[in-house]
Amino acid sequence: MKIDVFFTASGVQPAEVQGRSVVVVDVLRATTTIAVALDHGAREVVPAASTEEALRIAQNLERADVVLAGERRSTRIPGFALGNSPLEFTADAVHGKTIVLTTTNGTPALIAAQGAREVIALAAVNFGVVAQHCRAALEQAGDLVILCAGSERRFALEDAFAAGRLTKVVLPEGGLRRVDVNDGALASLELARHYGERWLRAFRASGHGQELADLGFREDVRYCAQENTHPVLPIYADRRITAYRAPQEG
Amino acid sequence: MKIDVFFTASGVQPAEVQGRSVVVVDVLRATTTIAVALDHGAREVVPAASTEEALRIAQNLERADVVLAGERRSTRIPGFALGNSPLEFTADAVHGKTIVLTTTNGTPALIAAQGAREVIALAAVNFGVVAQHCRAALEQAGDLVILCAGSERRFALEDAFAAGRLTKVVLPEGGLRRVDVNDGALASLELARHYGERWLRAFRASGHGQELADLGFREDVRYCAQENTHPVLPIYADRRITAYRAPQEG
Repeated sequence: MKIDVFFTASGVQPAEVQGRSVVVVDVLRATTTIAVALDHGAREVVPAASTEEALRIAQNLERADVVLAGERRSTRIPGFALGNSPLEFTADAVHGKTIVLTTTNGTPALIAAQGAREVIALAAVNFGVVAQHCRAALEQAGDLVILCAGSERRFALEDAFAAGRLTKVVLPEGGLRRVDVNDGALASLELARHYGERWLRAFRASGHGQELADLGFREDVRYCAQENTHPVLPIYADRRITAYRAPQEG
Repeated sequence: MKIDVFFTASGVQPAEVQGRSVVVVDVLRATTTIAVALDHGAREVVPAASTEEALRIAQNLERADVVLAGERRSTRIPGFALGNSPLEFTADAVHGKTIVLTTTNGTPALIAAQGAREVIALAAVNFGVVAQHCRAALEQAGDLVILCAGSERRFALEDAFAAGRLTKVVLPEGGLRRVDVNDGALASLELARHYGERWLRAFRASGHGQELADLGFREDVRYCAQENTHPVLPIYADRRITAYRAPQEG
């Protein structure tokens, strides 16, 4: 069994994700926002690499129920209906809609994960559901990649902590004796050891958490730190993210 | 006061090092090798970005006492006199010589640090001397950057641990209440907490440490893990690294 944690998407090669289960982490705030949008009934979230691509995708969809969302420097892109604050993604705003989303760090990480066997979006708000899925994937496929979005191609504490917390809970009995882990996974486990389940403490210690608070998004940080409030499993496939629903039993 | 730890040189902008004290860390093995070479009497070590540049520098120096050294994929570059193993840099091999050195991760990190107020090379073998210097620099300039070479533009546990150990010992009384630290510094402190002074344990846990052992460099890993065996302060200025000698008292 093998678990690799990467702290940024830059430098991750297609070969390293190909055929593997990849969990993308951008807890402040893109993957939280995605989980909230899907839990509030959005039909799908389509990640776009740039503002221009977001506009092009929206135009090509030719549908009335498309909502443009995204941020640059943490604030809403001018002309877009929504920013990247999970608080904006209410049922009223997103139910039944296709959200085209472009963010500074989260969407590049999702796009870097294309080619994986499956791509899942992790946040605190859907932690339990994702962890349960990953534990099964690790047992079956023997392999898991956790890809942190990081911050401007840099290590970000909040994502690294989330990666460590996930690594810790998906480790099978026997722990590190039974699983090969890379350097990133070892370091992230130390963060999980330090912060435990205290998401908010990790977020507030992080540079990006402090930056968001300074920009007036203190409530966002708090919201993003709530564990299991939006128990959806966001799966990214065919260029769109949808909530996975277990097949109904016959 | 401010301490920033970066886990790779990629993405570090010139503006982020300009005018600051920068400590470059590539404990397995470039910065160890540099400290050993200088302690064994090498006149200077000149970092080169590529094999071609190393050859060009050696030719331009037009001196008999130039030694070409370096590795690719951890093994000696064909035709070069020395590889990147500190064990090769004996007094016999390097005393009085100019070493032109090119390595996969260490030299790019040194080159990325150009423009800093001063650039220092840290290893376990010269840890105490560098720590003492950095403590003074932090008191005086209020500012320190620790730049890990990492491994192929990725997070490397051994460098991150070294960065954490340095951060820990240079923190003034009052610790994190008195110093601003970035996310990298916080994470590296957790590694320092975990491994303490056990360099070898951190090295053996790291992917690169295991890789070196597999390639037959087990002795190198052990050698690189010895604290304070080569107490020199390597300063990189004017494109060359020399051992700093405190001015003699009158």
